Amino acid sequence: MLGSEIRIYLAGPDVFLPDASQIAATKKTLCAQYGFTGVFPLDADLDITGMSPHEAAYAISGANENLIRACQVLIANMTPFRGPSADVGTAYEMGFARALGLKVFAYTNDPRSFRVRTVAAAGEGGEGTDAEGLTIEPWGLMDNLMLPGGVVASGGTVFVGHPASDVAFTDLAAFELCLKAIRRG
Amino acid sequence: MLGSEIRIYLAGPDVFLPDASQIAATKKTLCAQYGFTGVFPLDADLDITGMSPHEAAYAISGANENLIRACQVLIANMTPFRGPSADVGTAYEMGFARALGLKVFAYTNDPRSFRVRTVAAAGEGGEGTDAEGLTIEPWGLMDNLMLPGGVVASGGTVFVGHPASDVAFTDLAAFELCLKAIRRG
Repeated sequence: MLGSEIRIYLAGPDVFLPDASQIAATKKTLCAQYGFTGVFPLDADLDITGMSPHEAAYAISGANENLIRACQVLIANMTPFRGPSADVGTAYEMGFARALGLKVFAYTNDPRSFRVRTVAAAGEGGEGTDAEGLTIEPWGLMDNLMLPGGVVASGGTVFVGHPASDVAFTDLAAFELCLKAIRRG
Repeated sequence: MLGSEIRIYLAGPDVFLPDASQIAATKKTLCAQYGFTGVFPLDADLDITGMSPHEAAYAISGANENLIRACQVLIANMTPFRGPSADVGTAYEMGFARALGLKVFAYTNDPRSFRVRTVAAAGEGGEGTDAEGLTIEPWGLMDNLMLPGGVVASGGTVFVGHPASDVAFTDLAAFELCLKAIRRG
């Protein structure tokens, strides 16, 4: 794929970082360097003044869905968020994009497998289960099989970064591997 | 909606329970009592013999996506799973179903708000942030706004159950509220 007509939705828990707008700007600059237009979840020109919290949340959700509908590619930051798995909002958006036929790429800045992370977070019980007796996925993937499964089925790739853990949410080396792959087409 | 031609995909971490097939059977029986056909993620007639773990995982992922494509409604078990949020595979499937135009319903058997659960799991930092400085959503919803946002936009509802915590993954009272709502149309 080539050209600035390629719009890439930048999914991830980046929106929850204290410097979310800085990360958004940096990711967009990187997208532009590869000839793409980066679209950040907070880009919708949305005025939530006077709305109730629920109304505001639903307006943001709808705006994000519409931003994804206007993109051709999605790059998901699957770095684990408050548990062994990716942020659920990111997972939702990956599924949403996949169903619409977008090409979905992903990266995680935690190089441990989903199995290893789950054991670390939820303990180990009997054969293939955590301390609560819930199955631990044995596939050797980076998260619940639906996420990398959707990525691969869409023609994308999951890239794994190895930054220091204190910059797991901000390091963009693996993000840039996604951009390189998208440019190769 | 009426009639057994309504197929409902039963998304949730139920697949990870030790008695997953029992839960599947019970949910399908309930669906049938309301005139619907329940479709469980493990229903695909899939032979993964001889596949590598990655191949098997991708085959299951693709089979689940195809099962959702053949349904008109999805009911998601959003009960928190290994952290303050829903299972990410469930979140992915909610987004997938929403983009395809399915009606999406959800239930959670943890009546605490997402904010309260996040503080319990990730601590409280400054104004509206957790102990790591990451934003805590202030919307008063039951999970990341994309999940209830997608449900409501699709015409569905999020129902909240109040079972004892030791049956949070198996109690089906809130699941049955979804079925009643679907039958009302």
